[in-house]
Amino acid sequence: MLQRQLELPPRHVYPPDEWRLVEREFYPRRMAQFETLFSTSNGYLGIRGAHEEGEPAFQNATLISGFHETWPIAHAEEAYGFAKTGQTLVNAPDAKRMRLYVDDEPFSLRHANLKGYERVLDMRTGILHREILWELASGKLVSIKSRRLVSLEHRHLAALEYEVTVLNADVPVVISSELVYEPHDSLPESADPRVARAFDGRVMHCRLQRSRGPRLVMGYETERSGMTLGCAVDHVISSERQARTETREREDHSRVIISVDVRAGESVRVTKFMSYHSSRTSPADELCERTERTLDRAMTGGFEALCEGQRRFVQAFWERSDIQVRGKPDADISSEVLGSWEQSQQVLRVNLFHILQATARAEGVGVPAKGLTGMGYEGHYFWDTEIYVLPFLIYTEPRIAKNLLQHRFGLLEHARERARELNQKGALFAWRTINGEEASAYYAAGTAQYHINADIVYALRKYVEATGDEAFLYESGAEVLVETARLWRDLGFFSEQRDGRFCIVGVTGPDEYNTVVNNNTFTNLMARENLWFAAQVVERMRTDEHERYESLIHRTGLVESEVDEWRRAADRMFLPYDEDAGIHIQDDHFPFRKPWDFENTPPEKYPLLLHYHPLEIYRHRVIKQADVVLAMFLLGDEFSLEEKRRNFDYYDPLTTGDSSLSVCIQSIMAREVGLDAKARQYLSYAALMDYADIGGNVNDGCHIASMGGTWMAVVHGLSGFRDYDGSFSFAPRVPGDIESVSFRLTLRGCLLAVELSQEQATYSLLEGETLAFRHEGEKVELVAGTPASLPITRRRAAA
Amino acid sequence: MLQRQLELPPRHVYPPDEWRLVEREFYPRRMAQFETLFSTSNGYLGIRGAHEEGEPAFQNATLISGFHETWPIAHAEEAYGFAKTGQTLVNAPDAKRMRLYVDDEPFSLRHANLKGYERVLDMRTGILHREILWELASGKLVSIKSRRLVSLEHRHLAALEYEVTVLNADVPVVISSELVYEPHDSLPESADPRVARAFDGRVMHCRLQRSRGPRLVMGYETERSGMTLGCAVDHVISSERQARTETREREDHSRVIISVDVRAGESVRVTKFMSYHSSRTSPADELCERTERTLDRAMTGGFEALCEGQRRFVQAFWERSDIQVRGKPDADISSEVLGSWEQSQQVLRVNLFHILQATARAEGVGVPAKGLTGMGYEGHYFWDTEIYVLPFLIYTEPRIAKNLLQHRFGLLEHARERARELNQKGALFAWRTINGEEASAYYAAGTAQYHINADIVYALRKYVEATGDEAFLYESGAEVLVETARLWRDLGFFSEQRDGRFCIVGVTGPDEYNTVVNNNTFTNLMARENLWFAAQVVERMRTDEHERYESLIHRTGLVESEVDEWRRAADRMFLPYDEDAGIHIQDDHFPFRKPWDFENTPPEKYPLLLHYHPLEIYRHRVIKQADVVLAMFLLGDEFSLEEKRRNFDYYDPLTTGDSSLSVCIQSIMAREVGLDAKARQYLSYAALMDYADIGGNVNDGCHIASMGGTWMAVVHGLSGFRDYDGSFSFAPRVPGDIESVSFRLTLRGCLLAVELSQEQATYSLLEGETLAFRHEGEKVELVAGTPASLPITRRRAAA
Repeated sequence: MLQRQLELPPRHVYPPDEWRLVEREFYPRRMAQFETLFSTSNGYLGIRGAHEEGEPAFQNATLISGFHETWPIAHAEEAYGFAKTGQTLVNAPDAKRMRLYVDDEPFSLRHANLKGYERVLDMRTGILHREILWELASGKLVSIKSRRLVSLEHRHLAALEYEVTVLNADVPVVISSELVYEPHDSLPESADPRVARAFDGRVMHCRLQRSRGPRLVMGYETERSGMTLGCAVDHVISSERQARTETREREDHSRVIISVDVRAGESVRVTKFMSYHSSRTSPADELCERTERTLDRAMTGGFEALCEGQRRFVQAFWERSDIQVRGKPDADISSEVLGSWEQSQQVLRVNLFHILQATARAEGVGVPAKGLTGMGYEGHYFWDTEIYVLPFLIYTEPRIAKNLLQHRFGLLEHARERARELNQKGALFAWRTINGEEASAYYAAGTAQYHINADIVYALRKYVEATGDEAFLYESGAEVLVETARLWRDLGFFSEQRDGRFCIVGVTGPDEYNTVVNNNTFTNLMARENLWFAAQVVERMRTDEHERYESLIHRTGLVESEVDEWRRAADRMFLPYDEDAGIHIQDDHFPFRKPWDFENTPPEKYPLLLHYHPLEIYRHRVIKQADVVLAMFLLGDEFSLEEKRRNFDYYDPLTTGDSSLSVCIQSIMAREVGLDAKARQYLSYAALMDYADIGGNVNDGCHIASMGGTWMAVVHGLSGFRDYDGSFSFAPRVPGDIESVSFRLTLRGCLLAVELSQEQATYSLLEGETLAFRHEGEKVELVAGTPASLPITRRRAAA
Repeated sequence: MLQRQLELPPRHVYPPDEWRLVEREFYPRRMAQFETLFSTSNGYLGIRGAHEEGEPAFQNATLISGFHETWPIAHAEEAYGFAKTGQTLVNAPDAKRMRLYVDDEPFSLRHANLKGYERVLDMRTGILHREILWELASGKLVSIKSRRLVSLEHRHLAALEYEVTVLNADVPVVISSELVYEPHDSLPESADPRVARAFDGRVMHCRLQRSRGPRLVMGYETERSGMTLGCAVDHVISSERQARTETREREDHSRVIISVDVRAGESVRVTKFMSYHSSRTSPADELCERTERTLDRAMTGGFEALCEGQRRFVQAFWERSDIQVRGKPDADISSEVLGSWEQSQQVLRVNLFHILQATARAEGVGVPAKGLTGMGYEGHYFWDTEIYVLPFLIYTEPRIAKNLLQHRFGLLEHARERARELNQKGALFAWRTINGEEASAYYAAGTAQYHINADIVYALRKYVEATGDEAFLYESGAEVLVETARLWRDLGFFSEQRDGRFCIVGVTGPDEYNTVVNNNTFTNLMARENLWFAAQVVERMRTDEHERYESLIHRTGLVESEVDEWRRAADRMFLPYDEDAGIHIQDDHFPFRKPWDFENTPPEKYPLLLHYHPLEIYRHRVIKQADVVLAMFLLGDEFSLEEKRRNFDYYDPLTTGDSSLSVCIQSIMAREVGLDAKARQYLSYAALMDYADIGGNVNDGCHIASMGGTWMAVVHGLSGFRDYDGSFSFAPRVPGDIESVSFRLTLRGCLLAVELSQEQATYSLLEGETLAFRHEGEKVELVAGTPASLPITRRRAAA
C-alpha cells in the first residue's frame, strides 16, 4: 500500500517524448524538481540542471563524487562509539555560469519577456539543450541557444555552447562567462533528516587563482578534510564581428567578459570548456595543471567532437541497457497513471539515463544515494548501490559493477577499524559514508543496520555468478568475505532460549520503522548467506587456489576452525516463523506491536517519519519499506511460493512505502505471487518516483536506487528473471495493458536480447556463442544465430 | 554485583568525626571531590565548596535552583518530536570571592607555605569553617579564619566571615572582597553524557551594576531564557586599626578593597552578606532591590544571629531526620569498608545533610539530580526526586515533600503539551527538565522512560497515605491522576497476541541498558498502580467530594467511561513471567539477549556506557540498575517472598550498578530476601557513593538520589519499614556488625522514634497520641508515653 497522491507534471509543459525530457515553458512551480531531472553527470562530475545564468535556481550545484568536507558530529547527547566524522559533498565552483547583457539589459529568466522557451535533455545524445526567444522592452528579439554536456568519455570535462543572436536590431551584446565559488550557498534550513545540512562557515579556501586570456583557473582546498580541487574553464568565441574580451578576477570569482557589437541576424557563440580534478593528496596547484591539460586536449578536438563522442557513449549504453515498452492503445491501467505510451517509455528512459549518469565514470568513487543530482543525504553511499543499483550494472555493464565493488572493498580497512571500535571481530562497513568512516549520526537507523555487510557480499556473489569473474572473487572479494563472516559470527550467539539456534539481536533491518530488534528475518537470512558463501569460497580456495589461499591467510590470519564456526552459525541460524499463520515474522517483536491506525492516518501524514516521534512509529506494527518482502526477492529460492503469497498478503498492507526503496520490490513480489494489478501499479510508482515527485523531495536529487529498482521491477518483475547460484531463469508475464517489452542482459559475457509479448518470449544471443537458462522451468540452450521463441503459458495467474 | 574498587579518602586528611566533615590538609588530589562535598546550599541557593580565594578550584560555582539558560538542541540527525529546548543551570556571579594580600603578597592556597590547615563542614551547625596558618617567605605568620553559610532560614541569603590575623609582625593587610561574574567559566570538555556542556557564548548580560560604599549590586539577564537575576553583597569591617575601603567596578567585576595596617597580633575581620534573587518575569533592577532589602534585614541581625538561626534550623532537622548507628567494636564487615564507627556515622550524616541542603528551601523549584552542588546533568530534575528523595521527605519533613510535588504538578501544562506533540492523550511529564519542557536529547534513555508519569503518581500516593493529606490529593493531585492515567490508557493496547492483555510496548524502564522494550515489568506494574489509583480516587471523589469532583471534570473534561477503561486496562495488564523459572521477566526481550561476558570485563570498563556502544550494551543481558528489583521494593506487596528471592537471585548478578540509583535498592531487597551480607555491602556502597567517589564523578556534584537511597537502605532495609495502602509495618533485622540503629519517622502527624538492636525494637511516640502499625506482622497500637519494646525474632534468616 502506498499512501500517496500522484501528481504528474502538466503535459502541456512536459510533453511525452520517447527519447527526450522536454520542458516547453519556464515553469517555476516545478523548477526545483526539474533542476534535478535536467542534471547532467558522468558519475564523477555532476552539474545540476540550473540555468546557465545561475538564477533562478533551487540549488546551483556542481558536485564531484567523493569530494567532501568533514566535520565533527556534535551529538546532542554523546555516547561511546557514536559516529564522529560528518561528511558532506562540497558544492564546487560553478563553471557553467554565463551572464548575458543585450543593450546593457541583463537577461533574467525570471523577469524576461519570453517569446519562446524549450529545454530538452536528449537522452539519445547525452546533451542538454535550451532555446529561448527573448523580447526586450524595446522590441528587440534575441535568440539564446545553449547546449551543454558533462562528458561521459572524458571524466574531468564538461562543455557548453552559448549562442546569442539578435534577430531584428544592431546592438551591443556582452556575455560574462564566469567561474564562481559561492562559499555560503544557502541550503534551506530543514528539519527533514534526509536533507543535507548547510555548513556554518567557509568550506573551502582558495589556494590559487589565475588566468591567461580567456582561460580561468582556480585551486581550492577544504577546511577540514584537506581535499583539494582544481577547476578551470577556457573559451572559444566566434562571431561575425570582432569580439573584445577582458578578464577580471576577484576572490572566488573569475570572469571573461566578451563584448561584441552585433548586427541584426548575427550571432555571438561562446564555447566553454570546463574541467575539474579533485584529490585527497595532491596539492591544488598540481590539480590545476591537470585541468589545463584536460582543457588543452578538449579544445584541440572541439565541441562537436565532444558531442559526437557523447552520442557514441550514450548509444553504446542504450544498446546494452535500454528497455523498450509498447502499450496497447486501448489499455486502461497505463492511461490512468501515465497518459500515454510515449510517456511511459520516456519515464523509463529517464530512470535508466540517470543511472548511467550516476555510474558511468564512478571510478574509484561510490554512487551517492542521489547520484550527483543533488545534496540529499549529503552525498553519502549506502547499501543502495549494492542492492538496487548493482543488479542493473551487473546485468548490463559488469565492468562498472566491478569498479563499484572494488571501491567498496577499498574501504575494508575503515570497516575493520569500526568493528574494533565496536568491540567486534572482523569488519563492519559504515552504514552511510563517503570516506569509509561511519557518518550515521542516528545509530538506530544507521550503525544498527549491520545488514550492509551481507548486502555487499550478496552483490559480490551476484557479480561473480553473472560474470564468472572468479579471479576478482579470490583476489579482491575473499578478504571481505572473511571479515564480514567474522563479524556475523561474533555478533550473534547460540541462544539457549532458542534451542541453541544462532540469534542476531539488537539490529535494524532494511525497514527503518522497526529498529534495534532481535532476529530480523532479512538480516538473519542475509547473514546466513554471507556465512555460507564465505565458508564455501574459503574452502574452495583451500583446495583449488593454493597461492591465493596462502595470501588470504596471510592478510587475514584466518584459521580453519573459524570456517567451521561460520558454517555452524549459518546452519543453525534462527528464523522467526509463525507456524499457525505460516508466515515469516519480520523480527521477534513485530507481532507484539500495537496495530497502526491506517484508517485514520490522512495522506498528508506520510511519510510518517516527518510527522510522528520515532518512538511512536517503533511502537506500532507499521513498515517503512519492504523487509521480509525484500528477502523474498533477494533469496527467492529459500521461500516456497505459498510462503511468498502469505508473507506478501500479510506485509503489504502494513507497508507505507515511505522509502523510495520499497515499491520496486513490492512490484516484483506482487507479480511473483500473482497480484498483477498491484504489481503494475507499484511498477508505475517506482518509475514515477522522481518524474511525479512521489516522495516530495526530488528537489534534493534523484532517487538513484529507485531508478535501479525500476529496471529491476521491469526485468525481474515482468520477465521473472532470476539468478540463483549462477543459474538463470525466466518466467515472463506481461501486464494486460502492455503489448511488448524488450531489453538486453549481459550474462557470462553473452549479450542476450529478450522480447516479451502477451503470448511469447523471444530470446536471442547478440554476443557470445551459447547460453543456458530456464524458461518457465524448462531448460533452454540458446545458440548464436538461432533465436528461441517460447510461449508464455502462465500468463493468467490468480490475481 | 557492583564492579567497583572502593578507595576511601585517606584518613589522615579526612578523619572520621561523627558530626563534622573534616579536611586536615590542603589535598589537591581530592580537591574536586571535596569541593562538591563541602558545598553549602539551602535548596534554592547553593555555593560549591571552592575556597573563598576562588582558586584553585575545579569549578567555582554558585547555583540557583531553576535559574537556567535555554538553547536549541541541535540533533546530529533530526527527527519529529525530538526534544527541542536544552536547559542548563547557569553559574551565577560568585559573591563569596575574597582575595587577600599581606605585605602585598597575594595569598594563594596552591603556593602558600601552610603551617596549619583545617576545613570543617559542621553538620550540627550548618556552617563551613576554615582555619589556615600561612607563613610568608619573610617569616611572617598569618592566621586566616573563615566561616560561611548559606542560610537555611533566609532563602536568598548567604554570609561569610573572613578574619585575618598577623601573629608576629606589623604589616599592611589588603582584602579584596569581590562580586564577580565569569561568563566563560570553563567547564572541562567531556565525552561523558552525564556532564553538563559548556556554553559557546556569553550566557548572561549585565543589566545593572552599582555600588554604595561597601555594598555591591549587579543585575543580569540570560541571553535566551530571559530569566533575571539580582545579586548583591555588603560588608561589615572590624579591626583595631582604621580600615580604608575603596570600591571599584568594571564589567562583571565589582570589588570592595579593604586596607588596614595591622600590628602584630591584631586582626581584620570582614563579614560579607550575600543575597541572590531570580525570576522569570521581574526585571533585573527589581530583583536588585529585593537583594538589597534582604541584605538590610540580614545586617540588622548580624552574622552571629544568622549562625544561631542556622544552628536552630539544622538542629530541628536532625531531631526529625537523624539516623544514629552504633557499631560493635569487634565487627568485621564495617572495618573492612569503613574503618570505624565514627566514620560510618559521619558518612551517613553527610548523606542526610546534603539532602537537607538540596531540599530545605526548594520552594517552587525542583531538586536537581546533583542538588546545587555541581553542574552534572545540567541541573535537571528527573524521577530521582519522586522515587529516591521524596521517601525521606515524606517520612521526615512532609511539608517539603508537598512543596516538591506541588512544583512537579505545576509542570502539568507542559506535560499535556508534550503528550499532544507525541500524538497522545493526557499528559507526559518530561524525563529531564528544569522548566517543564522535555530536555532529554537521547530519547531511548529519555522520552522513552514513560514511567516518570507513574513515579510521580506513586510519590503522590505515598505522600497522601503517610500524611493523610487528602485535600492535597483532591485539589492538586487528582488532575495529575486523570491526565497520567489517560496517557497510559492511550499508550498501551489490548493485544491479541497476548490473550487480549493490556500491553505497553516501545518504552524504557529504569534500567537504561535495556531501552525501547516491550512490556517492561516495572513500567507495566507502575502504570497499573497509576491507573488503579486514578480510578479509585476519581470514583471516591464522585461519591464523596461533589464540589471537587465537579471542578475536576471542568478542568479535565473527564467522562465516566474513561475511568472504566483505566480499570479495565489495569486489571488486564500484561506482566511477562517465566513460569518455569518462576521469575518476572524484565521485559519481553530480556531473556533473548546475548549473555554479557562479565568474567572478561575488567573493572576499568565500568560504567559500561563510557566504554561500549549503546547497541552493544542493548544487545546483551546486562543491567545498569535495579529494575524488576526496584519494582519489588516499591510494590513489594505484589510479589511473594519466594518470587522476590528468585527474581533477586536472577537479576542481581546481571546488575552492574553503573547507576548510583541501584545499590540502595539492591541493599533493601537483598535484606528482604535474607542475603544479609550482600545487603550490608550494598548499604556501604550506597552510603559511600560520594564519600568514596564510587562513580568517579563526584566532582560534578553529589548524587542526591543515592543519598536519599542511603536513608531508604537504612530505614526500609534494616527496620524493614513498609507503607502499603497506608498501613505501616516493620520487620527489623540489624546486621551483625551493628549494635544499634535509631531514627525517627513522621507518620500521619506523629513523630515515631525507632530504636533497633540485635535483639529488639523499641518504638515510642514523641509527638501525636496514637499510631498503629505492625511489627513482624503483629499489630501494635502505640500510645504516647508508652514505648513498646518488641523482640526481633527473625534475625537469623537464610543468608
